[in-house]
Amino acid sequence: MLATIITIGDEILIGQIVDTNSAWMANKLNEIGIKIHEVISIPDDERHILEAVDKAMNQSDIVFMTGGLGPTKDDITKATLCKYFSTPLVLKEELLAQLAAYFKQRGREMNESNKMQAYLPENCEVIPNERGTAKGMWFEKGGKILLSMPGVPHEMKHIIEDHILARLQRNYALPFIHHKNIMTVGLGESYIAEKIADIEDSLPPHIKLAYLPHLGAVRLRLTGRSTEATQLISEITVISEKIIERISFYVYGYDELKLEEALGHLLKKYGKTISTAESCTGGSVAAALTSVPGSSAYYEGSLVTYSYEVKQRELGVKAETLEKFGAVSSETVEEMLQGILLKMNTDYGIAISGVAGPGGGTPEKPVGTVFVCVGRKDKMQTKRYQLTQNRADNIALTTTYAMFQMKCFIDECEKLI
Amino acid sequence: MLATIITIGDEILIGQIVDTNSAWMANKLNEIGIKIHEVISIPDDERHILEAVDKAMNQSDIVFMTGGLGPTKDDITKATLCKYFSTPLVLKEELLAQLAAYFKQRGREMNESNKMQAYLPENCEVIPNERGTAKGMWFEKGGKILLSMPGVPHEMKHIIEDHILARLQRNYALPFIHHKNIMTVGLGESYIAEKIADIEDSLPPHIKLAYLPHLGAVRLRLTGRSTEATQLISEITVISEKIIERISFYVYGYDELKLEEALGHLLKKYGKTISTAESCTGGSVAAALTSVPGSSAYYEGSLVTYSYEVKQRELGVKAETLEKFGAVSSETVEEMLQGILLKMNTDYGIAISGVAGPGGGTPEKPVGTVFVCVGRKDKMQTKRYQLTQNRADNIALTTTYAMFQMKCFIDECEKLI
Repeated sequence: MLATIITIGDEILIGQIVDTNSAWMANKLNEIGIKIHEVISIPDDERHILEAVDKAMNQSDIVFMTGGLGPTKDDITKATLCKYFSTPLVLKEELLAQLAAYFKQRGREMNESNKMQAYLPENCEVIPNERGTAKGMWFEKGGKILLSMPGVPHEMKHIIEDHILARLQRNYALPFIHHKNIMTVGLGESYIAEKIADIEDSLPPHIKLAYLPHLGAVRLRLTGRSTEATQLISEITVISEKIIERISFYVYGYDELKLEEALGHLLKKYGKTISTAESCTGGSVAAALTSVPGSSAYYEGSLVTYSYEVKQRELGVKAETLEKFGAVSSETVEEMLQGILLKMNTDYGIAISGVAGPGGGTPEKPVGTVFVCVGRKDKMQTKRYQLTQNRADNIALTTTYAMFQMKCFIDECEKLI
Repeated sequence: MLATIITIGDEILIGQIVDTNSAWMANKLNEIGIKIHEVISIPDDERHILEAVDKAMNQSDIVFMTGGLGPTKDDITKATLCKYFSTPLVLKEELLAQLAAYFKQRGREMNESNKMQAYLPENCEVIPNERGTAKGMWFEKGGKILLSMPGVPHEMKHIIEDHILARLQRNYALPFIHHKNIMTVGLGESYIAEKIADIEDSLPPHIKLAYLPHLGAVRLRLTGRSTEATQLISEITVISEKIIERISFYVYGYDELKLEEALGHLLKKYGKTISTAESCTGGSVAAALTSVPGSSAYYEGSLVTYSYEVKQRELGVKAETLEKFGAVSSETVEEMLQGILLKMNTDYGIAISGVAGPGGGTPEKPVGTVFVCVGRKDKMQTKRYQLTQNRADNIALTTTYAMFQMKCFIDECEKLI
């Protein structure tokens, strides 16, 4: 099954937004055995949309479109599809009722342009979208399928994941594809590649390995394609075990697992609690920890201590320590850690201080210098990191590395018991 | 001048990487008045590349291509362009010397596949690339231009910025393009559209308006195209002022300004400080505030108070309040606010408590119920929000709305003085 992806929106063609929808869709469709033939981005322009749709319908079995379904005047995808499929725009009464309920529930008034969202091409099947007012539309013509979805990423993802993928797998004979992701932190992709070069070289032709690095983490994705499902799964399991044996220290889990979830699982498993004292990360580690549903089982609270004064008053960091070693030092983060453990009365804690940039660097502690202390009342581990020149990257990298350092520390401590 | 962008690479079509090159090029080209007609992403496949190049050369004046110029076997762009332009691949002696110097300087050996980088299509003009071994190639055919560049982002950017943009501006009569973005929070795109329908309807044909919504914020973008720069800028200024007059309450700034930056500017302007007490957002507001360089001028610290106990102990929320009204209530966030103002001794504060989900909802306070209190010691404002079913969206939306509520409150207070 061959697909074309069309993303519609002037904002893509003037470079105001990066089209992330295509990559997300391509990835999901590949996982179920649909191959992407081409990705096309075009403006909100009727002639253009008609041409692109016609080409896509000719060259592929299924076309995925996003964008141009909003209630405003610049959104013309719906009217253009009516033209392409020679079908009128009609009021779907049940959709109008749903829309009314949607607005009522949110305590908002439904205006005329909102009501337009209940008008859809007569010959399309309506695909539910519980996240917004623009529905998905499934068209069929000459044995080909066209799926039109809103361009808002979380709405598009919801439609694809909850209403499309399983249906395509059920109704079409797609090859069996199996993926296994090995999630790692702390080792660059070229170093991983070096450690597993011989395993990679001996992969059979139907199994591929990809390295997907992102801000301090590298995801290793094994992808196999076969008609023999059971055999493929066991082949991939054997290979992934071989890989993990080589880099076990850096592996924190499989597949879509996030590092904050892995850390949460560990705390739940051992019945332990955690708190954080953050300076340069400004609450990012706390936000990551609490992004996990159910995190209240091991998390009660945190402090962001940006200034010297707050570090002293709230965490008991000594004035002499700050004066002698500076806020960005192992001495300071160690006192911060003991302070937060005492204040929040948790088993484990993370304390962070660094120079996120762009200002604040010195020759000894340039921008990108970060100290992370993880530990418990009787035992600590402090590491100094030298990161990048970019503030946002430094915050994101520190958040990842701090959680990884904490996870390794807890692993170590709890194994000893 | 109309352009097509073609990005080549299997990794794009399996969703392994997001194609950020296109958006970057589109943005740069738009700035000098080149309009992007289409962006096409295709695999490393000869027939595909030939078709895409042919279509692009027919439909536009200039074609920008990236990718497929590496030294490995899967890179076939160069050979394919030779076919398209009916020209042989020839050794460029001066390039071979440059390559030898490049490898010598880096202390690396030049192997056979590296040497292949000195072979280029005979009829192309070589565009320098000081950042890598694959040069840019400028082709002309039937009055049209095709520029082929490596896909490595920093190499492509270097070629465009240092060798292409000025040349295009010098040699071609390009129109003047002007963008103005109006940044808003708190009003859905359809409501904005309703309020400014007559302004939108009366826009001249050379000025367009687009709505770009993202998690509670809507960016309104005016784009104009003209040969008269001064006149266009003043036209767009007049229109944007008209729009702002209608929705002034929801506008927080222009162009690339982020809400946390706008809030920071305001605090700096009035010499005031801020702190936060967060429950369901878990530190996201603090992280947003401190993502702004220089935020230490108005920010010293924050508390994340997830549990009842920490709310009581650290912020002085009364046990009776929590028992009688619950943690998710206006009464609780108001006590949290007074607690954090006292603790951090700041002029302004934000306190947040809500049901982020997926668990914890009740009939009276379903998932998505959030209370935000902003204020100072003598004056507070509390709002109840009813958001979505999605935890991550609820946290992101609350972060945006809380900062916007705070900004409006400060505006109001400081104006009164």
